[in-house]
Amino acid sequence: MSITLYDLTGAEDDRRFSPYCWRIHMALLHKGLDFRTVPWRFTEKDEIAFSGQGKVPVIVDDGRVVADSWAIAEYLDETYADRPSLFGGPVAKGLARFATDWTEQVVQGGIFRLIANDLFAHIAERDKAYFRTSREERFGMTIEALGADREARLPAFQASLAPARATLAQQPFLSGNTPAWADYALFGAFQWARAVSPYHLLAEDDPVHAWRQRLLDAFGGAAGRALGYAV
Amino acid sequence: MSITLYDLTGAEDDRRFSPYCWRIHMALLHKGLDFRTVPWRFTEKDEIAFSGQGKVPVIVDDGRVVADSWAIAEYLDETYADRPSLFGGPVAKGLARFATDWTEQVVQGGIFRLIANDLFAHIAERDKAYFRTSREERFGMTIEALGADREARLPAFQASLAPARATLAQQPFLSGNTPAWADYALFGAFQWARAVSPYHLLAEDDPVHAWRQRLLDAFGGAAGRALGYAV
Repeated sequence: MSITLYDLTGAEDDRRFSPYCWRIHMALLHKGLDFRTVPWRFTEKDEIAFSGQGKVPVIVDDGRVVADSWAIAEYLDETYADRPSLFGGPVAKGLARFATDWTEQVVQGGIFRLIANDLFAHIAERDKAYFRTSREERFGMTIEALGADREARLPAFQASLAPARATLAQQPFLSGNTPAWADYALFGAFQWARAVSPYHLLAEDDPVHAWRQRLLDAFGGAAGRALGYAV
Repeated sequence: MSITLYDLTGAEDDRRFSPYCWRIHMALLHKGLDFRTVPWRFTEKDEIAFSGQGKVPVIVDDGRVVADSWAIAEYLDETYADRPSLFGGPVAKGLARFATDWTEQVVQGGIFRLIANDLFAHIAERDKAYFRTSREERFGMTIEALGADREARLPAFQASLAPARATLAQQPFLSGNTPAWADYALFGAFQWARAVSPYHLLAEDDPVHAWRQRLLDAFGGAAGRALGYAV
């Protein structure tokens, strides 16, 4: 029986843009597990009420329900321990949490301000009021103010990637020679941008650009075929 | 035969302040290897000329010479594979490089500007001209300008630690339940500060503060006994 992933989408059913759902999409591919996705929108809280909370990703695996991307990753790695490890051992799992925290604390906030207006344009109409209110409360300013002056913000965003750039100048993935969870966490942030924005976040000669391309091409090009913009 | 570590020191023979040497000090303790240290100063290039370069850390292990902290870590983990692993497997090693790059790209530069004047005060007299010239060339300003306004810089430095703080609020070490290379890399930066500066870099209720204390206490309190300031 295949796993079901409730996957945030925009105005179109296949505009999958959640960075957290992309982590799980890549994790399921990494584990080689069969899965299907169900498009879900912010205001469809009833559709995932069975999970006891209101956010995606949520997976259903033969009746077992797991929410939260980190918890899902742990569930998949423990339940399907005979398949390629997502974390790669206890020390790697500890450090994967650090890389994930870095993605969330540094990278995602930077990307949000570079794509805020494009993102809002792709949100489903029925979700727009929810999205505007929740994000404007969180950040204390309008979507339009958040997204202003992106040209001026781009250099600081690119500078904030310096640690990943240094690593990826020396090895193909954050996780070494092959990708693992930490790569999918960071890649999720870039897939979020790619799904909704034509804005170029990375210079073509940036080692981070080459790394992103390797992940767009991974698993038969699954992520690269997803609806989005040329990056 | 014990390993010899050439270890940067200040005006006193036991003012060991190199963040890179501290990584190796902790790594040797982690591996449980016998070692002795030789105090070394910036201008004593002749003393380590046998290593083919002019920086510490350098180790000599039964005639084998290795320089550069990452190369030494790899050497120790490969040569003493029967002892506790410094990296913890291939994925962990990949991510350890990322955490090390984060330490170097984000944390060390931030600390330098908070301790620059204290650091200069503890450099050996014979090293001061070298230190001033090399650092002022690297940063394009005087030591005194680099070290100015540290009260104003402290909040941004503490904010830059957000990814480590988030991780260490959830687990005792960056590497998970027990420390490994990535912890020693970051800890080295704090030992550098502790050796030369009474300035408090971390609030007492910061999870990073508690983590640092765990490493000061590790291995029988070896790092905590080193000459330095109460932090």
